[in-house]
Amino acid sequence: MAAALNWYRNDLRELSFLLLEQFKLAELTGQPPYEAWGPEEAKSILQETYRFCREVLGPLNASADRTGCRLENGRVRTPAGFPDAWKQLYENGFKSLGVSPEHGGQGAPVMLTVLSEEMLSGANPAFAMYPGLAFGAAELIRECATAEQVKRYVERMFNGTWGGTMCLTEPHAGTDVGAAKSTATRQPDGTYKLKGTKIYISGGDHDLAENIIHLVLARVEGAPPGTKGLSLFIVPRNRVHADGTLGDNNDVQVASIEHKMGINGSATCVLNFGEADGCVGELVGGAENAGMAQMFRMMNGARIAVGIQGLAAASSAYLNALEYAKDRKQGPHYTKWKDPTVPRVSILEHPDVRRMLLDMKAHVEGTRALVMKLARHVDFSRALRGKDDEKASYHHGQVELLTPLVKAFASDEGFRVCATALQVYGGAGYLKDHPVEQSVRDVKITSIYEGTNHVQAMDLVGRKLGQAGGQYFQAFLADVGAFVEAHRSHPVVGKAVATLASGQENLMSAAMGLFGWSQSGQLGVIGLNANRFLNMMARLAVGWLLLDGAVLADAAQEKLPEGDADRAFYEGKKQAALWFARNELPKVEAEAKLLLEQDASALDIPDAGFGAG
Amino acid sequence: MAAALNWYRNDLRELSFLLLEQFKLAELTGQPPYEAWGPEEAKSILQETYRFCREVLGPLNASADRTGCRLENGRVRTPAGFPDAWKQLYENGFKSLGVSPEHGGQGAPVMLTVLSEEMLSGANPAFAMYPGLAFGAAELIRECATAEQVKRYVERMFNGTWGGTMCLTEPHAGTDVGAAKSTATRQPDGTYKLKGTKIYISGGDHDLAENIIHLVLARVEGAPPGTKGLSLFIVPRNRVHADGTLGDNNDVQVASIEHKMGINGSATCVLNFGEADGCVGELVGGAENAGMAQMFRMMNGARIAVGIQGLAAASSAYLNALEYAKDRKQGPHYTKWKDPTVPRVSILEHPDVRRMLLDMKAHVEGTRALVMKLARHVDFSRALRGKDDEKASYHHGQVELLTPLVKAFASDEGFRVCATALQVYGGAGYLKDHPVEQSVRDVKITSIYEGTNHVQAMDLVGRKLGQAGGQYFQAFLADVGAFVEAHRSHPVVGKAVATLASGQENLMSAAMGLFGWSQSGQLGVIGLNANRFLNMMARLAVGWLLLDGAVLADAAQEKLPEGDADRAFYEGKKQAALWFARNELPKVEAEAKLLLEQDASALDIPDAGFGAG
Repeated sequence: MAAALNWYRNDLRELSFLLLEQFKLAELTGQPPYEAWGPEEAKSILQETYRFCREVLGPLNASADRTGCRLENGRVRTPAGFPDAWKQLYENGFKSLGVSPEHGGQGAPVMLTVLSEEMLSGANPAFAMYPGLAFGAAELIRECATAEQVKRYVERMFNGTWGGTMCLTEPHAGTDVGAAKSTATRQPDGTYKLKGTKIYISGGDHDLAENIIHLVLARVEGAPPGTKGLSLFIVPRNRVHADGTLGDNNDVQVASIEHKMGINGSATCVLNFGEADGCVGELVGGAENAGMAQMFRMMNGARIAVGIQGLAAASSAYLNALEYAKDRKQGPHYTKWKDPTVPRVSILEHPDVRRMLLDMKAHVEGTRALVMKLARHVDFSRALRGKDDEKASYHHGQVELLTPLVKAFASDEGFRVCATALQVYGGAGYLKDHPVEQSVRDVKITSIYEGTNHVQAMDLVGRKLGQAGGQYFQAFLADVGAFVEAHRSHPVVGKAVATLASGQENLMSAAMGLFGWSQSGQLGVIGLNANRFLNMMARLAVGWLLLDGAVLADAAQEKLPEGDADRAFYEGKKQAALWFARNELPKVEAEAKLLLEQDASALDIPDAGFGAG
Repeated sequence: MAAALNWYRNDLRELSFLLLEQFKLAELTGQPPYEAWGPEEAKSILQETYRFCREVLGPLNASADRTGCRLENGRVRTPAGFPDAWKQLYENGFKSLGVSPEHGGQGAPVMLTVLSEEMLSGANPAFAMYPGLAFGAAELIRECATAEQVKRYVERMFNGTWGGTMCLTEPHAGTDVGAAKSTATRQPDGTYKLKGTKIYISGGDHDLAENIIHLVLARVEGAPPGTKGLSLFIVPRNRVHADGTLGDNNDVQVASIEHKMGINGSATCVLNFGEADGCVGELVGGAENAGMAQMFRMMNGARIAVGIQGLAAASSAYLNALEYAKDRKQGPHYTKWKDPTVPRVSILEHPDVRRMLLDMKAHVEGTRALVMKLARHVDFSRALRGKDDEKASYHHGQVELLTPLVKAFASDEGFRVCATALQVYGGAGYLKDHPVEQSVRDVKITSIYEGTNHVQAMDLVGRKLGQAGGQYFQAFLADVGAFVEAHRSHPVVGKAVATLASGQENLMSAAMGLFGWSQSGQLGVIGLNANRFLNMMARLAVGWLLLDGAVLADAAQEKLPEGDADRAFYEGKKQAALWFARNELPKVEAEAKLLLEQDASALDIPDAGFGAG
């Protein structure tokens, strides 16, 4: 284990602030289904996970990037150390945290598992994808498959015996999933024969587990065109007998692995199914043409996971840049810049470095607060289901609404924050001797996979805003409004709250604008402005949650005696929130104005006007 | 030559529009010192250079990235094909374009050479750095050295016989150049013995030329501290006899080459000077302690060259994304998105793809116009020197003012545009099968080297705004103002011109704010807002020049018959300008408001408040 490459960083004080102080885990735990959980258990999990990430996953991150994956005799070899890390991950229970006890897991609240996932992903994003996909595939089977299928597959996928994938994309069918051409042919025994090529399959093969369970979208003969005619199949790499033991190879061939900009430790495969006519799949749940809806169960979780990847990379990049800024001495203090004889100071003292760091801190912590808000809604929608269905439905609605925000904002800002971290390092940041250049490369994929960020924006604008008659969005605005009412006159954040209030009004105007275009069929300008609207809404949500944290931080700080080390922590929370409110929240108003201008130049320009190569 | 990897693209129609129509080369040429030049000569150079870039440099770009440079027995081996490309570059005169005829060059206008340099850099940024640095070092010697030194070094450096470098940075002295510890000791024969370590030396060694002439900053014993005590030395890798023949090695050792995120074909070296006490240097021009001023001659050119690198990467990435968008079929037309049976369209038809492309086009063409504006000022400051010194001084002032804008804006936007191009490609963009991921990696360095973008911003705000009693900045504002007055009522761009006018006023207010802080010694908030001000001013300048181009495009378009292919070209120019005016120019006002809020949260936050790793 190369200590010098132990580059992963997080801030446990910040994590426990969010989990316990701002998002109040204790309001959820100590009662069904979280009887076994409380603040102490959660803190201990965070500490243990962080230790594992620092000591095991983090040190494998750079080396895996350098060596990548290899294809040997048709099988993928993952980077050195990955098989052992996989073993330790599962043996120590880090991956069963969110698994329900009936399947051998610990049944932890989602608010805790998102923080644990952030650490796994931040320490080694390429590695974390293998168990992440196995988990997602297992969850899908648990929710959508027959009892027999659940019994055969789920527990082994949750405990690391088997891996899992999701196989959607085909060469000509990326965002346009419904154009998939893979076919499934019914067999007399109730199984299906699959044929087709899938690309961009993360963890499409690996040497970490004894089997891999592929979930494959394909079209049964005679099914309708588009997504409505897609069915979902369980396709094990090695066939599985009824008793769970492994049989022969199932005619799933790894055609190649991709050479990528980053996440090189994650094998991105081209998979051929049924080239020798021997690929057998089981229909998930026994119903044909339900594949897209089933896949969405996995995709929603995967989208949140991608947002967490963006956050995770940004957080570690920020903290690494912070440490570098403390260590690196360069130039005089800015108040004495003309005097070459004064002592050199750490670059943390330079205003522009502080600006970059506070920008990063505010975005990282604000994005994490957004993830936690979403996780809290998931927890309460589960906890209240069947007890208070109206409240459960409110929470479910917020999950729907916030999912595209988390995926798109965290990935776009994750990339920007990592690039800013590189800038803090200066020339050193461009070298492989430091961690940030890899973070920039790794995190770039997050704005693309699991639905590009424009797909997220169209999901928000075209689907989520109007869901349940617009109630979800109205509830979101009302939640922001309640915060505004409560804290308008707050001595520290009052002025910032006024900016938030005007942002909320501007978001509403922008939504009305979109609604009007939708009524009049102006789909083009909706498409042009969807990303803008998502960014406005995410910025508003992040500003709100940062200010909410600042109110709590202010109260907590007041109770501490002068000199208490935690006072600076709370001061940092307040300043980050104020910085965001002053520098970022006004953009909501500015962007609303731009949106309502209804600029259509991008539609008006003739194709030939773009120019020629 | 792998045709599949011939990824470099530019648009000659666009280049000739800028050179001949918007920036009116003909107003400069046909008279001294440009008697030999005219539109036809210029167009032919552009065509020839583009052909060379497509056929020779472009195809070496990806392969050089993959193999990088190697250190063998203390000497750098550049990637396969580089030595031959160097030979062809010089033999065909592509690098002597801007060299004055007295040194064997073609003496072309800078407006033409910046376009030629853009193509060289865009086709192969790593390769282009070697001749670029040789040229810059030769220019410095030509301007600052003794006649004997000029005679001995310059022509061989201009014609590719020898390479050149600039050696400023030391491990503890990056941005803080004045902290350099390298020493120079006077020898009885008038030469100096040098000792010290320099890092990040681009092209610090290579196998392209028979010798390398290093320009090294060092401190003579007893010199004052800081930049004022630095002297500049000519330090050939192989000693040069008085007659120009080569002597022994000069005790310049390559300690290592860096492993970087990008520009892997460019050898970034750690150089040790005088480890065996045998490194001999000549003082440039014969004056001690003038090194920093001399180095700035090279640095200003290098900063413009870095801006051009940013532009070059962005332009090729844009045009590649455009071609991909035309080719790639995915999804139905947005007006028929619910029908899975309609034909798939090219992604160029999707509103969000068009938005990204128009954003890229506007930024690329606007940045190129800014580079051309700067180049035109260089040309006229040279042409008018001694003829009309007042006008020459006006042009010189604009060169001073626009240089930090070109360097910082073109590099920041270059990175953003390349990342946007990657997004247009979707998952394919993340693969090494396509050119854009390399462009993202290559271009990232441009915001850092030759002075980080914050150094540029402080140069603008702390030096250039107030230069000549503020006259340069006032002349810039007056130029924008004159355009506003002339085109306020223009039928196509009138409304956009109004936005420009308000941006100009806002820029002035922001400058007054900065001035006030400077008067009251509030250096901290100046540092916090310098980058913001630079971005505002660059955005204003780019918006102005795009609108200026749109006015010309509109007039030219009107003269063309319906159906003329050039009509779409001009329409594209107009739509890009309008897009920029609607979507980007309003940010000048929004940012001015933020600046004047004087937010100091990044100074107020205690160091410990940033959090801990």
